[in-house]
Amino acid sequence: MSQWQRYLEQNQDQYLEDLLAFLRIPSISALPENAKDVQKAAEWVADRLRQAGVENVEILPTDGHPVVYGDWLHAGDKPTILIYGHFDVQPVDPLHLWTHPPFEPTIEGDRVYARGASDDKGNMLIPILAVEAMLKSEGTLPVNLKFCFEGQEEIGSPDLPKFMPQHKDRFIADLAVSADAGQYSETEPEILVGLRGICGIQIDVKGAKTDLHSGMVGGTIQNPTHALVQLLNTMHDQHGRITVDGFYDDVLELSDDERAAIARVPFDEEIYLEELGLEQTFGEPGYTTRERSWVRPTLEINGIWGGFQGDGIKTVLPNEAHAKITCRLVPNQDPGRILDLLQAHITQNAPRGVTITTKILGTRGKPYLVRADHPGNQAVSNVLRKIYGVEPYQVRSGGSVPITGLFMDILGLPTVAFGFGIKDENIHAPDEFFRLSSFRKGPDAYCQLLERLGEG
Amino acid sequence: MSQWQRYLEQNQDQYLEDLLAFLRIPSISALPENAKDVQKAAEWVADRLRQAGVENVEILPTDGHPVVYGDWLHAGDKPTILIYGHFDVQPVDPLHLWTHPPFEPTIEGDRVYARGASDDKGNMLIPILAVEAMLKSEGTLPVNLKFCFEGQEEIGSPDLPKFMPQHKDRFIADLAVSADAGQYSETEPEILVGLRGICGIQIDVKGAKTDLHSGMVGGTIQNPTHALVQLLNTMHDQHGRITVDGFYDDVLELSDDERAAIARVPFDEEIYLEELGLEQTFGEPGYTTRERSWVRPTLEINGIWGGFQGDGIKTVLPNEAHAKITCRLVPNQDPGRILDLLQAHITQNAPRGVTITTKILGTRGKPYLVRADHPGNQAVSNVLRKIYGVEPYQVRSGGSVPITGLFMDILGLPTVAFGFGIKDENIHAPDEFFRLSSFRKGPDAYCQLLERLGEG
Repeated sequence: MSQWQRYLEQNQDQYLEDLLAFLRIPSISALPENAKDVQKAAEWVADRLRQAGVENVEILPTDGHPVVYGDWLHAGDKPTILIYGHFDVQPVDPLHLWTHPPFEPTIEGDRVYARGASDDKGNMLIPILAVEAMLKSEGTLPVNLKFCFEGQEEIGSPDLPKFMPQHKDRFIADLAVSADAGQYSETEPEILVGLRGICGIQIDVKGAKTDLHSGMVGGTIQNPTHALVQLLNTMHDQHGRITVDGFYDDVLELSDDERAAIARVPFDEEIYLEELGLEQTFGEPGYTTRERSWVRPTLEINGIWGGFQGDGIKTVLPNEAHAKITCRLVPNQDPGRILDLLQAHITQNAPRGVTITTKILGTRGKPYLVRADHPGNQAVSNVLRKIYGVEPYQVRSGGSVPITGLFMDILGLPTVAFGFGIKDENIHAPDEFFRLSSFRKGPDAYCQLLERLGEG
Repeated sequence: MSQWQRYLEQNQDQYLEDLLAFLRIPSISALPENAKDVQKAAEWVADRLRQAGVENVEILPTDGHPVVYGDWLHAGDKPTILIYGHFDVQPVDPLHLWTHPPFEPTIEGDRVYARGASDDKGNMLIPILAVEAMLKSEGTLPVNLKFCFEGQEEIGSPDLPKFMPQHKDRFIADLAVSADAGQYSETEPEILVGLRGICGIQIDVKGAKTDLHSGMVGGTIQNPTHALVQLLNTMHDQHGRITVDGFYDDVLELSDDERAAIARVPFDEEIYLEELGLEQTFGEPGYTTRERSWVRPTLEINGIWGGFQGDGIKTVLPNEAHAKITCRLVPNQDPGRILDLLQAHITQNAPRGVTITTKILGTRGKPYLVRADHPGNQAVSNVLRKIYGVEPYQVRSGGSVPITGLFMDILGLPTVAFGFGIKDENIHAPDEFFRLSSFRKGPDAYCQLLERLGEG
């Protein structure tokens, strides 16, 4: 047993206490009223980095939520690894569907329930603990290390495209390792070879000066909710294919090899549907569910509202209606170009009798690909093979981590994923949880990865 | 000057105090949490009737909000008049658009601002004050009188179809006079010859067990908001004509005479648009704005919601979406039949991949017509002509007063309208107000109408 392994074993109880303290901070980046909690989480992370022996720890301001930086750069000509994660979390609504309080972490068996437990607080704390174990037990690290922890991932990192070029020198490295990541199952590892990109837009439809009486005025003017429905309905056909002009133009069609690689990753549609509580899948014709999730773009309404939502009836003709939309993008789509297409489509299909405006939502991420045979992914594969005893699956994710596009565009830095979330952990949903077994396994695995990266 | 006129003049200040007290009761029938306030308003009305000298005053329970009854039946073989009004009011949201507090009545010039000031508290208090003036000053009335004041008009009187037959004997009369009514302008009177009917339905779309991550799952399952948008979009064509199968089947087409009568009522589309803050009207092709409002049926979304509505972005794939719809109906449409057609249409056009259920909203009213030469309307015309010095317009209303259908179906009782609201008074909208001049004019006019009805 190595010295750092002994250190990890001896400090398990304290590490769990640390995790619970971190989870108690309601660092919801989407809600202005929680901005101070995001700041508090940044301070907690900075303190924890310093305690671990990380140097030059700083909370760096952005135009929105801050970034926490720290480094340890005493490994000479060894490579420099930039470890990434995020300390902000998703909102908790609908709160009434939680059976555990979201910010009072609850341990049940192998699970700790809390918002952010899996995405990403549990996962981002792991490399800090790994580094602490190595530094406290051996006094050194096998690589040079930098940390980049952000507080705005869940809102699409809107301020980082401006922030990152300003701090380019600080973050320069050889490889980024994202701790915002997971494994295929408790017994089967994976390496991540692709992520979808993202962009978002809000549509605001405005009618009369005020809400009106649906009897007096109904039938004589455009109802903003009708106009919104009509407009939104132009964006998909009834089979689920997106009908925004030009939307698919830049999409790279899948090669047979790529489709085969995707098909090799096990997927049980019955279990998928059972977990979701649904009877059938639905989506763009001509693609499997996995392909629809991993390599095909989407346009999803995240929210729609207008008029009366209370109990009973209110015979109002609403004077406003709204929708929030995000698109997931695949290689070689560009978020800026897709936003342009969306705005052109909205202008062209705007029903008459109302005023329609759009607002670009603060999220923009390019789709991202890192090949399985990239040296970073090879190192990750080696460590995972050793720990799990089986070959990792080569997976993509339907989700988006916009920072990976920035690392590539601004720092020329490829990103590999190394984390321990499992897909049943209700991220972005009520009763999010993280496995305590993953939280124990993670720091050990990170130490092995750093050793491996130090050899290469 | 008659004795009752003198009495009215002497009591103006007290009457205004009474109105303000009545307006302070937030008797919103749509909101369960205000049910006790609707009850309080019923008690206030019952007390005020007793104070006026009305006899046999009772608060009659229904399955929902109560009805207040009272009578004065000492006019021998004179006709029996049933005076109708309602003491419930609309909800106040969006509250932030009110510049006066909705339940703290504010007097500015000739206006008293409060929810319910015009619809219908100001108007329903008027006949009570008229009756008081006659009884206190002359000790008698020129007709037998009954009062029927309800507390659920704003939610479509859902419990009255059951209540009214149970109390048939109590309400039997020769003519109903509705104080839920208005005049064309401050200087031009009107008689009401038609009202639209109403029915309502809620659509609930359910997808997965919980809200989901729009990245992980997006593109692979039906999004309930997409399904709702697709379904709602099948209900109108892009010109505003309703496309629910069979919807127009029972509608009586307008005769040339009827169109001409409607065209005789002045209407300035520019002023209409300016008041609404809009640049164009919109509606079923082939009809004027007036015709669309008065004699053509509608299907309006009153509310739509699903997913995230907060600031910023939440990349959720919502698991629920909802819409509330009401239809305004014209002669010879039947609310029950229209609800059947809607449900059949929804079943037939339900997108796959989600579960769609419907709930009939508690409002159902038949469209209603009373000819201009009906003796009741003739009496109303005579009084209005005397007061205003001009011939009343023959108008219809796009609104619905479901009780008028019940009075006809169950009591065989025609209803004429006699009230003093003006259409700019923001009913069902922020900053509702009533004119103090109307509140002074009203009781005098009601005394004249009762005298006239006693003669005929």
